[in-house]
Amino acid sequence: MRIDGKAYRTIWLADDGWGVEIIDQTVLPHRLEIARLSELEDAAVAIADMQVRGAPLIGATAAYGVCLALRQDQSDEALDRACERLAMTRPTAINLRWAIEEMRDTVRNIPHSERVAVAYERAAEICQQDVETCRRIGEHGLELIAEHSRRKGGETVNVLTHCNAGWLATVDWGTATSPIYQAHEAGIDIHVWVDETRPRNQGAALTAFELGHQGVPHTIITDNAGGHVMQNGDVDLCIVGTDRTASNGDVANKIGTYLKALAARDNGIPFYVALPHSTIDWSLDSGFEIPIEERDPEEVTHVWGKTDEGAFTRVEIAAPGSAAANYAFDVTPGRLVTGLITERGVCEASSAALRELYPEHADG
Amino acid sequence: MRIDGKAYRTIWLADDGWGVEIIDQTVLPHRLEIARLSELEDAAVAIADMQVRGAPLIGATAAYGVCLALRQDQSDEALDRACERLAMTRPTAINLRWAIEEMRDTVRNIPHSERVAVAYERAAEICQQDVETCRRIGEHGLELIAEHSRRKGGETVNVLTHCNAGWLATVDWGTATSPIYQAHEAGIDIHVWVDETRPRNQGAALTAFELGHQGVPHTIITDNAGGHVMQNGDVDLCIVGTDRTASNGDVANKIGTYLKALAARDNGIPFYVALPHSTIDWSLDSGFEIPIEERDPEEVTHVWGKTDEGAFTRVEIAAPGSAAANYAFDVTPGRLVTGLITERGVCEASSAALRELYPEHADG
Repeated sequence: MRIDGKAYRTIWLADDGWGVEIIDQTVLPHRLEIARLSELEDAAVAIADMQVRGAPLIGATAAYGVCLALRQDQSDEALDRACERLAMTRPTAINLRWAIEEMRDTVRNIPHSERVAVAYERAAEICQQDVETCRRIGEHGLELIAEHSRRKGGETVNVLTHCNAGWLATVDWGTATSPIYQAHEAGIDIHVWVDETRPRNQGAALTAFELGHQGVPHTIITDNAGGHVMQNGDVDLCIVGTDRTASNGDVANKIGTYLKALAARDNGIPFYVALPHSTIDWSLDSGFEIPIEERDPEEVTHVWGKTDEGAFTRVEIAAPGSAAANYAFDVTPGRLVTGLITERGVCEASSAALRELYPEHADG
Repeated sequence: MRIDGKAYRTIWLADDGWGVEIIDQTVLPHRLEIARLSELEDAAVAIADMQVRGAPLIGATAAYGVCLALRQDQSDEALDRACERLAMTRPTAINLRWAIEEMRDTVRNIPHSERVAVAYERAAEICQQDVETCRRIGEHGLELIAEHSRRKGGETVNVLTHCNAGWLATVDWGTATSPIYQAHEAGIDIHVWVDETRPRNQGAALTAFELGHQGVPHTIITDNAGGHVMQNGDVDLCIVGTDRTASNGDVANKIGTYLKALAARDNGIPFYVALPHSTIDWSLDSGFEIPIEERDPEEVTHVWGKTDEGAFTRVEIAAPGSAAANYAFDVTPGRLVTGLITERGVCEASSAALRELYPEHADG
């Protein structure tokens, strides 16, 4: 997608053909900075410190992290160490593990001397597949938005989204935003309510930034306000992402998603979750088995931003001495989800529907 | 209640016997500053700029605002002008109008020369009544908490609250916090989940500050996290305040309250609303008739706090150029409210139950 009119992906190979470059998302929307990853540890830190975030992009970055590790040491031990190091960076998103296992499976049985080249090839494929997957998610989601537009006689379709399941969370297009971008490109009148998404404000900082640069009309609201705009009749549908989807259709997504799903149900508003197959954890029968990451409480007690003078700093907002807890995700039960928008089409958030769409996992 | 061990109310007469002093809540928790109100406009600005906030305290401040106006001009015209000026400061809380009408009714039919003295007397009464009302709300709410404590065999009772319906929102005790303080004083093991309450963070800044100075164990969470802690079994009951209660038991409270009520219902957790009679608007049959204040979008796009160097400043958190909307309240339908905790006891959130508790309004 575009920033100031220039096309970007979130991750790409540097001109030297082996270094990896990313958009450092910790300083957006205030500065556009490209960071270079030159070794395994750079990739691990970029994921843990959320210079890259979003389940699909975490997976893509981990794939390149394996490449960077293999450049220095092609042994099985080095491969395993790299996979372990990368797997421990974030506990909730399953794409991370999926991408790591893809990389391990790919290089495991080939000669050491060929591993680096093959790994880079597979990482590039993972990225390219992610772009294609997100594009298809967008095509299927576009139909849902177009249907609302038709029903409203072309009046503005209002979509609410939470956090950033945008192109900055993937390699390109995004998951939840892909239908929005495709609807906008198709000329559908669309407006997006952007939850700010405390504590890290990925909605206000990243989703709003993305939508703005793509020219999509949008309004930032506090996480608290989603219920009110739904009660007011100002939301036609919700589309969010997911960091891990259990095989029964429960989704673990950014903390607060569950509250929006409850409000959508209470107001008869469809609530969709957009996801690539790689976020589905076929080993889990319930979303409540998904480990929920707890992050540093300082993300709650302090807020980063830009001062009027242009300095990038943090301010303390909480009473000094008070404890804080920082749960990063919550689980939205499939019963609250109207449909899952996947690269293969839209299905019910149920075990049966998911297995019908992915018959290769039907016995999983 | 106490700050650093010293007893305070939120509003009191200055030593000169006519000026009014308040705790300036816009700089809490970072600084304790006392502001002086010397004329009508000081009181109006203190309410509009939220140096004082919380429905009962807004009412008390407006009462003294009428006194300050009458000190300068005792005419009917001046009285009406003062009442109008004060009424327009905040649209949602009904206590404001209630207190203004109380003051107008009190002085309307007495000689101009006696108006100032009588007004100060009535304002002091309103404050004293608020203290007593909140104390009684606490007694009734304490029974609910004690019941949970008994049922759990003395294990910690976890209460979730939203925004600040604490002593800083009233003259003393608070509404939602009064049961908490009385339970704590009674030796009940209690812990409070404090929603930070964007956009102005009254939970993280004020409720946490209050609870800390009273020694009540508490943990700040983002507004997004309330559903997760409820799903986790970590909340026994919710208690919040209300800025205006319709005669059918619907409540307009700080934006985001509705989302917590939905989560409480989904998890079978009791959801109580604590209120003095002065927040009941007997003229409204539904909460959806309550006007919802919209405030400056900069409260959403920017956050105030203290830098690591101790400076009090604001930082921009949103993508520059993105629009924001700032709804200050939402409506929680009575069907989601387990009970209303009033100074006369706990009742269902319904028209019949409210009229039974307040028979003087039974024909309203």
